[in-house]
Amino acid sequence: MTGAEAIIKTAARANVEICFANPGTTELALVAALDCEKSIRPVLGLFEGVCTGAADGYGRVKQKPAMTLLHLGPGLANGIANLHNARRARTPVFNVIGDHASWIRPYDPPLNMDIAALAQTVSGWHKTSDSAGTLSSDTAAALSASRCGQISTLIVAADHQSKTCPDAIVEEESFSFQNVDSSMIVHAANLIRNAKRPALILSDKALRARGLAAAAQIRAKSECDLLMVTFPACFEAGAGLPVLKRIPYFPDSAGKLLAKYDAFVLVGAPQPTAFFGYEGGATLLLPDEAPRVRIDTFKQDAAAVLEALSSFLGPDVGREALAPLMGQQAIPGLPTGALTAEKMCAVVAALQPEGCILVEEGISSAVSYYSHSPYLKPYTHLTLTGGSIGMGMPLALGAALAEPDRQVITIQADGSAMYTPQALWSQAREQARVITVICSNRTYFTIELEYLRAGYGQPGEAARSLMSLDAPPLDFESLSRGMGVPAARVDTVERFIAEFRKGLAHQGPCLIEAILK
Amino acid sequence: MTGAEAIIKTAARANVEICFANPGTTELALVAALDCEKSIRPVLGLFEGVCTGAADGYGRVKQKPAMTLLHLGPGLANGIANLHNARRARTPVFNVIGDHASWIRPYDPPLNMDIAALAQTVSGWHKTSDSAGTLSSDTAAALSASRCGQISTLIVAADHQSKTCPDAIVEEESFSFQNVDSSMIVHAANLIRNAKRPALILSDKALRARGLAAAAQIRAKSECDLLMVTFPACFEAGAGLPVLKRIPYFPDSAGKLLAKYDAFVLVGAPQPTAFFGYEGGATLLLPDEAPRVRIDTFKQDAAAVLEALSSFLGPDVGREALAPLMGQQAIPGLPTGALTAEKMCAVVAALQPEGCILVEEGISSAVSYYSHSPYLKPYTHLTLTGGSIGMGMPLALGAALAEPDRQVITIQADGSAMYTPQALWSQAREQARVITVICSNRTYFTIELEYLRAGYGQPGEAARSLMSLDAPPLDFESLSRGMGVPAARVDTVERFIAEFRKGLAHQGPCLIEAILK
Repeated sequence: MTGAEAIIKTAARANVEICFANPGTTELALVAALDCEKSIRPVLGLFEGVCTGAADGYGRVKQKPAMTLLHLGPGLANGIANLHNARRARTPVFNVIGDHASWIRPYDPPLNMDIAALAQTVSGWHKTSDSAGTLSSDTAAALSASRCGQISTLIVAADHQSKTCPDAIVEEESFSFQNVDSSMIVHAANLIRNAKRPALILSDKALRARGLAAAAQIRAKSECDLLMVTFPACFEAGAGLPVLKRIPYFPDSAGKLLAKYDAFVLVGAPQPTAFFGYEGGATLLLPDEAPRVRIDTFKQDAAAVLEALSSFLGPDVGREALAPLMGQQAIPGLPTGALTAEKMCAVVAALQPEGCILVEEGISSAVSYYSHSPYLKPYTHLTLTGGSIGMGMPLALGAALAEPDRQVITIQADGSAMYTPQALWSQAREQARVITVICSNRTYFTIELEYLRAGYGQPGEAARSLMSLDAPPLDFESLSRGMGVPAARVDTVERFIAEFRKGLAHQGPCLIEAILK
Repeated sequence: MTGAEAIIKTAARANVEICFANPGTTELALVAALDCEKSIRPVLGLFEGVCTGAADGYGRVKQKPAMTLLHLGPGLANGIANLHNARRARTPVFNVIGDHASWIRPYDPPLNMDIAALAQTVSGWHKTSDSAGTLSSDTAAALSASRCGQISTLIVAADHQSKTCPDAIVEEESFSFQNVDSSMIVHAANLIRNAKRPALILSDKALRARGLAAAAQIRAKSECDLLMVTFPACFEAGAGLPVLKRIPYFPDSAGKLLAKYDAFVLVGAPQPTAFFGYEGGATLLLPDEAPRVRIDTFKQDAAAVLEALSSFLGPDVGREALAPLMGQQAIPGLPTGALTAEKMCAVVAALQPEGCILVEEGISSAVSYYSHSPYLKPYTHLTLTGGSIGMGMPLALGAALAEPDRQVITIQADGSAMYTPQALWSQAREQARVITVICSNRTYFTIELEYLRAGYGQPGEAARSLMSLDAPPLDFESLSRGMGVPAARVDTVERFIAEFRKGLAHQGPCLIEAILK
């Protein structure tokens, strides 16, 4: 067995099922090893950001790590932006980076870089291989480290990959969360009981079905309001689930919402902070005087924390008592007339099938979508956790391969779409069931807005040239077809509805460029 | 004056003329400042790799730094692959990265990253701002540090950008090389004189007109053979210039060439090393027993070094004595028949106009081009210095903006083209005079070749899926039009010639997808 085979077999034994790869000469032994282990599906990305974004999407939906295979320092660097989002999403990811043969590294060949320095910016665990013999245990350790929701990066010299090593495969240590810290639960419960208007702020696994069920109980027992962070990794939404207020993006609006409460319990959520700092604006968004408990879910299971809190607050209420607290199905009617961002969101909300996965990277154009969210048929919703744009189409690829029977829908801003457009080719190659809606407003609208908010007045010629995308206009229909994804351009609600319906009937990927008014 | 204005004005004073930018909310003060200083031209890239690759192309041609403006850690990360090439090319580049406001950083907002850790992987100089008041001197120091051929990265907190600071602009310390180290020259001259078959290995500025003129003299005086590194940043080539042997890519061929010589003088070149390490293959490529002198050109001017060496070897020979040593014009005839990689190279060589700039990222498809190079009308040639693919189209953008009157021609591999295709949009927007020839062989051919060379035999299904680009085939004609660059697809020599001629007659950018047999 080669070192590369040790990695692949150890990963397969640990139930890794997919590898998003863009390999080169220093990963050839790993490429060859993938032919010896049929249980890991290799998926080629034409750019590393596709691979890492797809691994994030896969991991969020499947709640287990995908493997990536990236080429040296530049390959990892190209994947960092989407790994940054994965880190913020607490997605388990297992990166394998091929490095130069160990004996050539001291001579600094052209592709040589400080890969570990790059890796540590996004990885909770990283290691540079020291021999073929430890690669199985390195892989097991990397995978084990990823399970609590972090990125593991194993940098493997080419000679360690190709060298023969013992056949023994190390089993990954089974992962389990620690027991819930009951003193924190008591503290949180007392806070809720003693407050007039308490709020739970949820993120991470608290927003999956089990966590939400417990949160609904807490609400029923305590009148505690339920909020979610601005950009959750993955949440279940729709009718029959509790209605959560999503903390707004702009700090003034967020501050206004949070000022309504006099105590906070944060489960899996960092303390709410402005996304950007504004001169004279708030940084920390919770009202200063409000007491708070923050329960970290790195070592504890968020759902178990909520269940413990709920049970401390009293016996569970029944379905009927819960029902009025839950979202009732209220699917918006189909709009007509000029195609605006709001109408685009309403059409998606109206037509999306039960159980679909919605990827939201619509930036300014998707703002209104969430107002429909709690009232739709149940679905899964992924957002841009780390603010590093270009995740939408790769994330959708990974989500679609994680759940091939579910429809994936991406609401994708046009500016952001141009960061990792290569994802469309992999969607076509893998026949991923993804409808991409490009929100074509032909501007970096958020930057325009922030420019005005910052008080610079109307942008001059130079500033304008750095915000507008209209000269030349991007033609996403051509771009998409160029990568093998059928596409249409629409500028009326009626045509958007027709194309969206066509997309739902289609098995593979498609793209709709929605020219927004 | 704001801190941002201090940066922009200091850069303008130091003769920075262009800024390749992809800004966000943390760079708005810099965006606004660009409207106050009209001598710096802002150029928008839709992805940061476009900006950094363009800065590399601009800097190689113009031999002075372009500025880039990038958004936080993810923005810098997206630019690292092409900065890696720039670092290997010894291109001066001045990066400015906007960071979060200093007061919000401790609260770790979503986009927060360790930007300095990323910066240090490619930068010779980097600094994180500590106040608005020092930004002018920081900028001057960064620019000064870049002049010897390295990357400077200034990370500037948003609040330092917007804060008011004194109006004083710090002048950049004027840059000059150190005097040539005469003891090294004596040592090198003696080596050449005492050897039977000495060779000069040139890189960096040694390959510009002045260096080449001195190298030709050295050859005339000493029979010293002239070689160049495998992947020079920028060299002048064509009839009337000395003919240099380019060290081959594969270490066995390189070793065979280098074994012919018994002494080496390296000017600006690292010692020749295999690009990748191969089991049982050579790492260091110079024959063990051959004495060598390596003259670093980080602090000394490569051209001055060669001139000193030449003058030590005796009085200059005249034009007539030099003439037989120089390349004579011998432009290849136009081929006919099926379009192969070799014929594509021959057509480009035959039709390229005098004074053009040739960007070579053809990887396996461009191998035969250099055989024509010394015999063409004089032109400038840029190559993939760091092996980080995806530099071709961005580099061409920067080169075209550096020299708007010269035709730029990019020989671009299809696999590599998909790393930074967004460069085409900026080429269209800026009406850059670039003809991009896509070498469409629909495979990562080099990886296939390396796979076979490594002895893995015929790739299995998994390995094949990670090397082939044919399902679905990429349609570069659509991709290019989607970004506003007129394009054509050709599969015969005759049609390639016709489209190439059309491209030469056209003022703005165009793309030819050459389907290779």
